[in-house]
Amino acid sequence: MLTFIGLGLYDERSITVEGQEALRAADHAYAEFYTSRLVGADVADLEAYHGVDIEVRDRPGVEQDPDDMLARAAASDVAFLTAGDTMISTTHADLRLRAEERGIETRVIHGVTAQSAASSLTGLQNYRFGKAVTLPFPYAHGGDRVPESVIETIEANRDRGLHTVVYLDIKVGMGPRGPDPDHEEYMTADYAAELFAEEWGDELAVVVARAGSPDAVVAADRLSALAARDFGDPLHLLVIPGDLHHVEADALAGLAGAPDDLL
Amino acid sequence: MLTFIGLGLYDERSITVEGQEALRAADHAYAEFYTSRLVGADVADLEAYHGVDIEVRDRPGVEQDPDDMLARAAASDVAFLTAGDTMISTTHADLRLRAEERGIETRVIHGVTAQSAASSLTGLQNYRFGKAVTLPFPYAHGGDRVPESVIETIEANRDRGLHTVVYLDIKVGMGPRGPDPDHEEYMTADYAAELFAEEWGDELAVVVARAGSPDAVVAADRLSALAARDFGDPLHLLVIPGDLHHVEADALAGLAGAPDDLL
Repeated sequence: MLTFIGLGLYDERSITVEGQEALRAADHAYAEFYTSRLVGADVADLEAYHGVDIEVRDRPGVEQDPDDMLARAAASDVAFLTAGDTMISTTHADLRLRAEERGIETRVIHGVTAQSAASSLTGLQNYRFGKAVTLPFPYAHGGDRVPESVIETIEANRDRGLHTVVYLDIKVGMGPRGPDPDHEEYMTADYAAELFAEEWGDELAVVVARAGSPDAVVAADRLSALAARDFGDPLHLLVIPGDLHHVEADALAGLAGAPDDLL
Repeated sequence: MLTFIGLGLYDERSITVEGQEALRAADHAYAEFYTSRLVGADVADLEAYHGVDIEVRDRPGVEQDPDDMLARAAASDVAFLTAGDTMISTTHADLRLRAEERGIETRVIHGVTAQSAASSLTGLQNYRFGKAVTLPFPYAHGGDRVPESVIETIEANRDRGLHTVVYLDIKVGMGPRGPDPDHEEYMTADYAAELFAEEWGDELAVVVARAGSPDAVVAADRLSALAARDFGDPLHLLVIPGDLHHVEADALAGLAGAPDDLL
């Protein structure tokens, strides 16, 4: 049995009660933190809180060499942990399919995702969001600004009045000059706002920093103003709003400090 | 202090560990189940498992008469519970704003949402979904088929190659002839597929039944075929796929039984 367990957004207590029970009952636990990570807990914290040993895998250890994990899952109860929800990225859908092809029973225990939290914390309605995008580090796409594909997605959403969640690039184990096990880099929202300000300097955007943590920050302002602020520790994301329903405008003013003249 | 706690998708163990701790520490707990509900637990189950008393409110008791809740939250620690994530619906963003206007500290402890689970269980990538829609019961919109606005949203998503989550109508406390405290009705996926089949009979759709539960079902087939099946207990939702990445197609075949000729 291979159980995919989402750890949620922040620390060792962001997992669901069901997930915690399954983790504690597993014979062996693996985790990966290259697609995202918990800002409020490291592996030792997770191990101590849940009373388990956790083997952390890098990307090649999951995507290219999962055979030993699968062999173990064929013979015993194995948990596979990620931040957020394990199956949101197709990477792990592939691992699940490999397991199913070998006749290994699989199960998904969901975790809270940044996408839900972005909607929930900003007061922007979940069914008024369009397609989400990821903003890559300029070095990762060889340009020096926001890629055209990102601009196009946001504009296509706006044409329909829809909001856009912009995930900010995470580089773990992969640096500007290729694979590097010590590299860990999280794009900040002020940096992202600065990149977007070149396109839309005075337009409204919303920063969500540390969603799911006790010190989550939500700030709505002009892109140029957000670019000048410091939102502290990662993870950050940015929302580019489309049309605002009046309750949404009230929420951005009341919960995120949006200036009246932008609403 | 007013803490909004998402209960997640299925039963008393779908809450996060952090949410459970906050619920147990609260002086008073309110809940509403008119926007959604837990299929695997009733109020008594929640009360027994978490060792708390829970006062359930109907829609008027939350939206029109929240004064006593707010007064209590001004003087003590109050928890407000919903299925999924509490703040996804603007209803509760409004309650949060009212609290903030009175100077009451508020906090959100997120829960797993159906939107995340829909992506996670189907293997369809979260950033390839467009705007979501809700399919209302025909009696609720005065027509006898899928409303034009729903069709337009799905087609606008498809024009961009994007998937659409279709939430299915829930009527609790409101029946075909107006307010009715005993009315409880959940649209099933086979019924929804039948409505959509009038538009797109042979096209591919994906049913997700009981997301987050131990017996979640994911089934991909022609709309006309899905209309003839029985997916059991609620809650159900439907996904209308856009273009499929090859890993997504593999997932729909391997995890949801999609016929090869539709992929």
